[in-house]
Amino acid sequence: MPSLDGFFNPRSMVIVGASRTPGKIGYELLRIMVENSKRGIYRGKLYAVNPKSDEMILGVPTYKSVLDIPETPDLAVLVTPAKYTPSAMEDCGRKGIKNIIVISGGFAEVGGEGVELQKQLELLKDKYGMRVIGPNCVGVVVPSTGVDTMFLPVEKEFLDKKYISSPRPKPGNISLSTQSGAFGVACLDYMHGEGIGLAKFVSYGNKLDVDEVDVLEYLRGDEETKVILIYAESIDRGRGFLELARKITKEKPIVVFKAGRTSAGARAASSHTAAMAGSDNIYDAAFKQAGIIRVGDMEELFDVAKALVMQPPAKGDRIAILTDGGGVGVMAADETEALGLKLANLSKESQNRFQDLKERRIVPPIAATINPIDLTGSATDDSFVEAMRILLEDNNVDGIIVLALHHVPGVTAKLPSKLASLSRSYDKPVVAMDVGSSQYAKAFRELFEIEGIPAYPESERAVRAMKALVYYGKVKSS
Amino acid sequence: MPSLDGFFNPRSMVIVGASRTPGKIGYELLRIMVENSKRGIYRGKLYAVNPKSDEMILGVPTYKSVLDIPETPDLAVLVTPAKYTPSAMEDCGRKGIKNIIVISGGFAEVGGEGVELQKQLELLKDKYGMRVIGPNCVGVVVPSTGVDTMFLPVEKEFLDKKYISSPRPKPGNISLSTQSGAFGVACLDYMHGEGIGLAKFVSYGNKLDVDEVDVLEYLRGDEETKVILIYAESIDRGRGFLELARKITKEKPIVVFKAGRTSAGARAASSHTAAMAGSDNIYDAAFKQAGIIRVGDMEELFDVAKALVMQPPAKGDRIAILTDGGGVGVMAADETEALGLKLANLSKESQNRFQDLKERRIVPPIAATINPIDLTGSATDDSFVEAMRILLEDNNVDGIIVLALHHVPGVTAKLPSKLASLSRSYDKPVVAMDVGSSQYAKAFRELFEIEGIPAYPESERAVRAMKALVYYGKVKSS
Repeated sequence: MPSLDGFFNPRSMVIVGASRTPGKIGYELLRIMVENSKRGIYRGKLYAVNPKSDEMILGVPTYKSVLDIPETPDLAVLVTPAKYTPSAMEDCGRKGIKNIIVISGGFAEVGGEGVELQKQLELLKDKYGMRVIGPNCVGVVVPSTGVDTMFLPVEKEFLDKKYISSPRPKPGNISLSTQSGAFGVACLDYMHGEGIGLAKFVSYGNKLDVDEVDVLEYLRGDEETKVILIYAESIDRGRGFLELARKITKEKPIVVFKAGRTSAGARAASSHTAAMAGSDNIYDAAFKQAGIIRVGDMEELFDVAKALVMQPPAKGDRIAILTDGGGVGVMAADETEALGLKLANLSKESQNRFQDLKERRIVPPIAATINPIDLTGSATDDSFVEAMRILLEDNNVDGIIVLALHHVPGVTAKLPSKLASLSRSYDKPVVAMDVGSSQYAKAFRELFEIEGIPAYPESERAVRAMKALVYYGKVKSS
Repeated sequence: MPSLDGFFNPRSMVIVGASRTPGKIGYELLRIMVENSKRGIYRGKLYAVNPKSDEMILGVPTYKSVLDIPETPDLAVLVTPAKYTPSAMEDCGRKGIKNIIVISGGFAEVGGEGVELQKQLELLKDKYGMRVIGPNCVGVVVPSTGVDTMFLPVEKEFLDKKYISSPRPKPGNISLSTQSGAFGVACLDYMHGEGIGLAKFVSYGNKLDVDEVDVLEYLRGDEETKVILIYAESIDRGRGFLELARKITKEKPIVVFKAGRTSAGARAASSHTAAMAGSDNIYDAAFKQAGIIRVGDMEELFDVAKALVMQPPAKGDRIAILTDGGGVGVMAADETEALGLKLANLSKESQNRFQDLKERRIVPPIAATINPIDLTGSATDDSFVEAMRILLEDNNVDGIIVLALHHVPGVTAKLPSKLASLSRSYDKPVVAMDVGSSQYAKAFRELFEIEGIPAYPESERAVRAMKALVYYGKVKSS
């Protein structure tokens, strides 16, 4: 089976069903690719096919048929109406195009005639040995190569203004495979806003051919991908998926957000098949066996992904909490125990070192130095750094959660880089947290992330991220 | 026992320990009050006391002693060093001041001499019949009257710039009582960023006198307060608290975020008392009996508060989900069942009405019209509005969750006001959701909230908010 590389890094691609009318999918998709080409992100060739006229669209060489193109593109993206799609695909096959993305809907998902049309596509795929993503999908988005078949324009009218509506994330090392196109689009919007970088995005829609197993196999070998995220409502080739996942999780982490976990959700996911009530426990056990990290919602999906891409896995489950706010320390301690992690018992030596720091007034004398370490509102950057050094060097500590409320007067914007440069000399995971939606809070968390420490707006979220690092540490070493 | 009104709406207040040095608490606190006075928010008189000089500070009449002030202020805010605080308080007593906020730390929380000093304050309180908030607290913040003893300046240096660091929320109808000052400050930052309005904020620190029960009693009678939020790590007068809460929850909702729910958290909350392991179940049961809504983290605290302040309670637990994105519909269905709510079975009439809308192409023919209603990516504002009308009129539906992904081409920024003006004619709670961190997503959610429909960035959070409306509906009608 040939690699899927042609989908993600084609030397040439053709949009079949390109349109001259702004707002139409066949226009918007082409426009996005033309922009990526102009910006130098997409470096391959671009062609368009429009059966009515071979006049150039948006400066792109346009042909009445795929067969007229002077070369064989690596990738064809079909946005033709469903009923014309089989013949467009037949042309692609005759031309020798091996990778097809069918964006168009109107196939198996609508039932009736659509099912028949999808069968025709399947026959053509086999006849010509093509790989197909879709139909009824958003396709792929690859910020590093500029391939982007998400046909939604970045901006959209908001009352009398234009607002950024469907932004694309920056290039990065997290890949997302999603069964739901709409949710995938929403995830990209979220990733952009949160500053989370994307390697590969794949929405495979009706899974005529390429499914989660194929995507997984591809992402396994993709060097850009360090963490694999999967949103799925059903996994058809369950056994193949799990066998493959078991191998991959030794190399890179897989995080799955499997919806349809209750009978109501499962019914919603599929009104066709019988209710899958109860089967969720089976998924749970299978995921665990394959070393997959399972999350319960979108927020956790990306919280965990950020931690896994930025920090090393933990070598054990003994966690230290370091804070300047007693309340958030209590919340983190609660969540640590609730998730089955342990609050580390600091070594005798660490206790002595803290005592010494108190005597030298580097750590406030009123600080609580039993884990959680509460430096109190009298904390300074120095007290954080020196406390962190003790925790990094304590063999009883496997991971450190820093809850640094920026409101405290002695804490400055230099703290994130100081903590990061210190912790880089050790192989212990560190995650950070600051509460608030103010300019300072957002910029402070961003500074942590620029320095490679994932930062969260809530204690509990930071602990859940650490839990994933502990879990993945176990998976890798088992 | 006199009302606490003098703390929240004083006709005159004095800052004892006012300073001329920017950065000092005694300066920053005064500066904030002076600004609120200039902006016309604080309409009372302002005095300062500084033992060294009676030269005006920031234009505020300043005296060497409280006794020199030409009138008796309603409120004295003490920011004097701990050891001078008893004598400052004695002066307040002799002057006849009845309401004292002691911001200063260095009392019981530091042990030793501090415990002794706090006892002195207690004796003075009794001697003069004063009410005291603190010591070791942030005090009160009341956006509507401009009283603000949170001494942290709004802006703080961020590398070489000034960033908004400790913003105050706009006036509103949610009040917050918090045991942790630092967490309280962080909550105000969060509320500001999320556009959540504040009625009264109280941080009572060491609880020398005023505690959660007193605050609760005051907020009960406060017309501005529609929803009461409490953050607590321990509740000392448990019985009084619960008896009072039981009465209040018939009138307005109380939401409690009680930390220290695990033994690790309880130990962190109090290294003095013995571990409270196991006692959390008792809290849980007691809260339930008192009709209190308990939440597990800060995000949920405010998610629930927003819903309760904006929407009526639900009359039952049968929920309808309306969406343009299948995936988020599945997630919401999952969470609905997981939280013990029911997915409503739409009436036969509703089914017929949906069929009719499909035939008239007002709702896309491929829409799934069994709850969750999935209008699909072909949804328009009209299809949302007409579907919403059916759900509002269906007697099998007690509450509606609208998951409106703005990315869908046919959905416009007019949708929130259309849905809101329709739903205002019915007495059913509606909550909304849109995923994303883009400009459009944020503005879209904001439009919903301007129209009185709370809007969340995640399906699961919207469902949890609806759960609180269902729960409170039961409490009110029981």
